[in-house]
Amino acid sequence: MKAAAAPEFEVSAWVGAAGPVSLAALRGKVVAVYAFQMLCPGCVSHGIPQAKQIRKTFARDEVEVLGLHTVFEHHAAMGRPALEAFIHEYRIDFPVGIDQPSEHGPVPLTMARYQLRGTPTLLLFDRHGVLRHALFGMVDDMRAGALIAALVAESVADTGPQPHCDDGACRL
Amino acid sequence: MKAAAAPEFEVSAWVGAAGPVSLAALRGKVVAVYAFQMLCPGCVSHGIPQAKQIRKTFARDEVEVLGLHTVFEHHAAMGRPALEAFIHEYRIDFPVGIDQPSEHGPVPLTMARYQLRGTPTLLLFDRHGVLRHALFGMVDDMRAGALIAALVAESVADTGPQPHCDDGACRL
Amino acid sequence: MKAAAAPEFEVSAWVGAAGPVSLAALRGKVVAVYAFQMLCPGCVSHGIPQAKQIRKTFARDEVEVLGLHTVFEHHAAMGRPALEAFIHEYRIDFPVGIDQPSEHGPVPLTMARYQLRGTPTLLLFDRHGVLRHALFGMVDDMRAGALIAALVAESVADTGPQPHCDDGACRL
Amino acid sequence: MKAAAAPEFEVSAWVGAAGPVSLAALRGKVVAVYAFQMLCPGCVSHGIPQAKQIRKTFARDEVEVLGLHTVFEHHAAMGRPALEAFIHEYRIDFPVGIDQPSEHGPVPLTMARYQLRGTPTLLLFDRHGVLRHALFGMVDDMRAGALIAALVAESVADTGPQPHCDDGACRL
Repeated sequence: MKAAAAPEFEVSAWVGAAGPVSLAALRGKVVAVYAFQMLCPGCVSHGIPQAKQIRKTFARDEVEVLGLHTVFEHHAAMGRPALEAFIHEYRIDFPVGIDQPSEHGPVPLTMARYQLRGTPTLLLFDRHGVLRHALFGMVDDMRAGALIAALVAESVADTGPQPHCDDGACRL
Repeated sequence: MKAAAAPEFEVSAWVGAAGPVSLAALRGKVVAVYAFQMLCPGCVSHGIPQAKQIRKTFARDEVEVLGLHTVFEHHAAMGRPALEAFIHEYRIDFPVGIDQPSEHGPVPLTMARYQLRGTPTLLLFDRHGVLRHALFGMVDDMRAGALIAALVAESVADTGPQPHCDDGACRL
Repeated sequence: MKAAAAPEFEVSAWVGAAGPVSLAALRGKVVAVYAFQMLCPGCVSHGIPQAKQIRKTFARDEVEVLGLHTVFEHHAAMGRPALEAFIHEYRIDFPVGIDQPSEHGPVPLTMARYQLRGTPTLLLFDRHGVLRHALFGMVDDMRAGALIAALVAESVADTGPQPHCDDGACRL
Repeated sequence: MKAAAAPEFEVSAWVGAAGPVSLAALRGKVVAVYAFQMLCPGCVSHGIPQAKQIRKTFARDEVEVLGLHTVFEHHAAMGRPALEAFIHEYRIDFPVGIDQPSEHGPVPLTMARYQLRGTPTLLLFDRHGVLRHALFGMVDDMRAGALIAALVAESVADTGPQPHCDDGACRL
């Protein structure tokens, strides 16, 4: 049995995107998503620079980089205008989704759905939209680069939720 | 002629202070003031850590460390609740004054009065409240330490705006 | 046509190796070789730490890490006892080959054979012993990790100088 | 009673000095001496850059910076030619004394005389040649800058081994 594609993000808006963003529309690419909060020190000193480095290191037709603003504390301080100022000042050049606030508690919906432990968390999805790595805290650049490159090296047919038999052949 | 004591700060509130703060009340101590904005990348990566390092390096009865939140852009994103969240998350352990917004433009009153060029700026006042250094941008730690120590080494009588003749004696 | 396996290193000795080391004996593994000089500042501050990081990031049965001491200046200062002290002090935990000095000039034999531009240089060989990357100067960790992982992801059969038909089958 | 001036260094040679160097000849200046070994990792990554930073931060007529090569291990690897290559490659622009090897053990004479605990050690002498600080290990730049500036701020008459009464006056 193959792993299932991950659920879509539930976001109230995308900042810096030309249009709507979805994991489904990114099938065929590796997707690196940085879950962060703009007032989380480790996100600012480590996560955001690493996300920008991923954007710089890998080709756009192979790897998509997204941010996900998963605010679970200090909600009043991290609303949309604050996030937009942050994105401007830190020269963030990839789309950032605003995780949908919950009506029932401080943790936003996507963060809850993915059971994230906190911020920063680097989520790596393969070409089939399967979540392959959820890395909480400081991941060193070499390891991040190696994990992403390994996913890039997988052909579209290598893994994922497609049936075992396809193209007239059956795969182990 | 001796240099005049600097004008007081015009702030709307002090965060993290036991009571009101004034340069006048700090006479006798060297005062290091970091003018910053919470969404200014250089302030976050360099200015705030250096301010904390000053607090750690020098004795409290010799050197006072203060922050001054001089917001001149993205005002909506850097209001008091946002600043308080920032102070909490970055473990800032010295008082921070909120520079009084102007009714006539984006630059707040103290920033205008001191003619600051931007953020971060490190202001160093001597034991007489005279502004001796206004250092804009990245100052390396060794130089900051040396400048502050030189001010600490000045006796209260060394400099300042007091009259030439005092205590019944006349000084050169 | 397939690329040819790279020529062997010509070294006067291996330090820190259990026995003789050869590219031929490492077929099947990716091999990362750091050409360095112990008195080259960029090698000490960047190359050696990166080599150790490669050793730490990748599994030993997938990636071999080697040093190559390519002394082309200050020969008197970087002889074998000096190198051994350096290896000890910097806790280098992979084998280091001493590039064979030339009788005709300052550049040692392997360095000349590989036409290296200087130190540090990171050489990356694929599972077939083919030199795939020669990276002179400071390579950032993410890129190094990505390049190595991409080579690791190649199956033994993917590339290299082997005949098209093997194991009784013929491959495209 | 005043503190005594420190004993002179016992060195076999000075590298990079116009002529002989002595603490006595430097009376009137603050003297910062970095005891180091060229194969000591902490000296290379921290001590030498800090020594260069001291040279850059303070005026030459106020502060003298010297190196002291106190080899107590790997003697064969750190002889004079090796040191000269190191000084050249690391662009060291202050005089370095070679601590005189002992006939009775690995620890050289000045290192023993000053009872240094290891390398790197930053020795700070005041304007009277009195050793005021011996800082073993990593000292942060701000503290180093502050300690040196405090010594610079002392007038020649402030401290030191001179008699209590001088210039016809008696001092407390």
